[in-house]
Amino acid sequence: MLDCIIIGSGIAGISAALTLKANQKSFLIFGNSSLSEKIAKAESIRNYVGFIGGTGKQLVETLKKQLETEEIFIQEERVSGVYALKDKYMVMTEEGGMYESKSVILACGVESVKQIEGEETYLGRGVSYCATCDGFLYKDKTIAVLCTTKRLEHEIGYLAKIAKKIYLIPMYKDVEISGDNITIIRKMPKKIEGTKRVEKLLFVAPPTPEFSAELSVDGIFMLRECVSPAVLVGGLQTESGHVVVGRDMSTNLKGCFAAGDCTGRPYQYAKAAGEGNVAAHSVSEYVK
Amino acid sequence: MLDCIIIGSGIAGISAALTLKANQKSFLIFGNSSLSEKIAKAESIRNYVGFIGGTGKQLVETLKKQLETEEIFIQEERVSGVYALKDKYMVMTEEGGMYESKSVILACGVESVKQIEGEETYLGRGVSYCATCDGFLYKDKTIAVLCTTKRLEHEIGYLAKIAKKIYLIPMYKDVEISGDNITIIRKMPKKIEGTKRVEKLLFVAPPTPEFSAELSVDGIFMLRECVSPAVLVGGLQTESGHVVVGRDMSTNLKGCFAAGDCTGRPYQYAKAAGEGNVAAHSVSEYVK
Repeated sequence: MLDCIIIGSGIAGISAALTLKANQKSFLIFGNSSLSEKIAKAESIRNYVGFIGGTGKQLVETLKKQLETEEIFIQEERVSGVYALKDKYMVMTEEGGMYESKSVILACGVESVKQIEGEETYLGRGVSYCATCDGFLYKDKTIAVLCTTKRLEHEIGYLAKIAKKIYLIPMYKDVEISGDNITIIRKMPKKIEGTKRVEKLLFVAPPTPEFSAELSVDGIFMLRECVSPAVLVGGLQTESGHVVVGRDMSTNLKGCFAAGDCTGRPYQYAKAAGEGNVAAHSVSEYVK
Repeated sequence: MLDCIIIGSGIAGISAALTLKANQKSFLIFGNSSLSEKIAKAESIRNYVGFIGGTGKQLVETLKKQLETEEIFIQEERVSGVYALKDKYMVMTEEGGMYESKSVILACGVESVKQIEGEETYLGRGVSYCATCDGFLYKDKTIAVLCTTKRLEHEIGYLAKIAKKIYLIPMYKDVEISGDNITIIRKMPKKIEGTKRVEKLLFVAPPTPEFSAELSVDGIFMLRECVSPAVLVGGLQTESGHVVVGRDMSTNLKGCFAAGDCTGRPYQYAKAAGEGNVAAHSVSEYVK
């Protein structure tokens, strides 16, 4: 069994991976081979020790080279759930993968997009975070899809093949996906309403003249770069959306550690690197 | 008045300085322009995010260049005491400097050399950490000087001009200082003994044939690269020699923050960088 599974390929996850590697622990790091969109978008990085005035793109290139040098490979699957079993963790991916490890490090970042009112209430009752997990439930139905990144457009494509009608609310520029059953709406919804299950999506005002301020939908998919840690790991203690951790980056779940933006502000590279490092040391101690 | 004084020019101190600079806060950073001897000695650094497989010397060169780029200058004075006054801090240096600031960040590292039994008991009663502060007390007396780094040899020289006799116990190679009244002993003492004040230094066995296992001394100077934070700042809460901090790097003293090795293990660059960054953010918030 693996010593550890790291979830997230931002600075915290990479830092944890480098240290686990140095400590000769077995691990997988789940994320994206392009690492972090957020970093790549940074115009100028001035306060990260050891990195002299460069752009986010340059930092990403450095990170890629460093991972290559250390022979660390990113597992390109999206983690859909982490389950705490007796003395081990089971990590499931949207691609259908199942992985076991003695410990996990959550380094999944924070989503800059706020939750929508009603999102938590209707989670599992019409609100879903995973197209491939729940898409089949919406055959010939009408759904809304909020998507924060172009990287997840393939999931929209997957849903478009199943659903009758998709209202796509993209939170990024240069939308490439299109289809007869896809209507793009460029307004953020305000609220999710329903009775037992999701029934409609409410806007402050009609999103475009041809719509009313209410859309009738059977389900809503939230396709986000980062999944909320509390959604990912059942029973995880969070506070205002951040994972509660100790100085050793331990969470309330034995063997589950967290690092980086998901543990709270300041959202800074140095903090993320430090916490990833500390989490990896705690894991090394834990799996002894 | 300054917003902050950073004590220490290792990774934690530099990280704090970079972030205070980015946040446009006024500050001084006390340390050494050669930055950190410990880093420079690292043979290979493999798990610091963004720094690909290099030596400590290379990292120090990068840090110097980064400080230069950001126009951050190291104040080359040794801090001898930090005093918490009402709403501000007074920082005194061995060179006689007195500086006021609204807050302090302790980034003074840890000394790898253990304390000697009795050291704390006789602090201020024959045990001293500062040649220029207390040297005058030992005119024509016999003293022992434990010194961890060649960088402090000038302090030994200063003491040699005052004291009658010096037993020098160097904890580094290539001792350059010499003098008629300086005798070098290459053994670590075990214990400090005395009644009201220091009277003798005990060794496990005679350090050299011509000595007994006891040296009669009037005082003992401990010249170390890092001064214990608890000695530096009166009233500071520590545990096993480490400063007790919260997740925001605050200590038990209002306006006093700590970062890096002095807050505990793991003694890692990434942790130090992260904590320095977080401490600087907390300071920025605090001085608002």
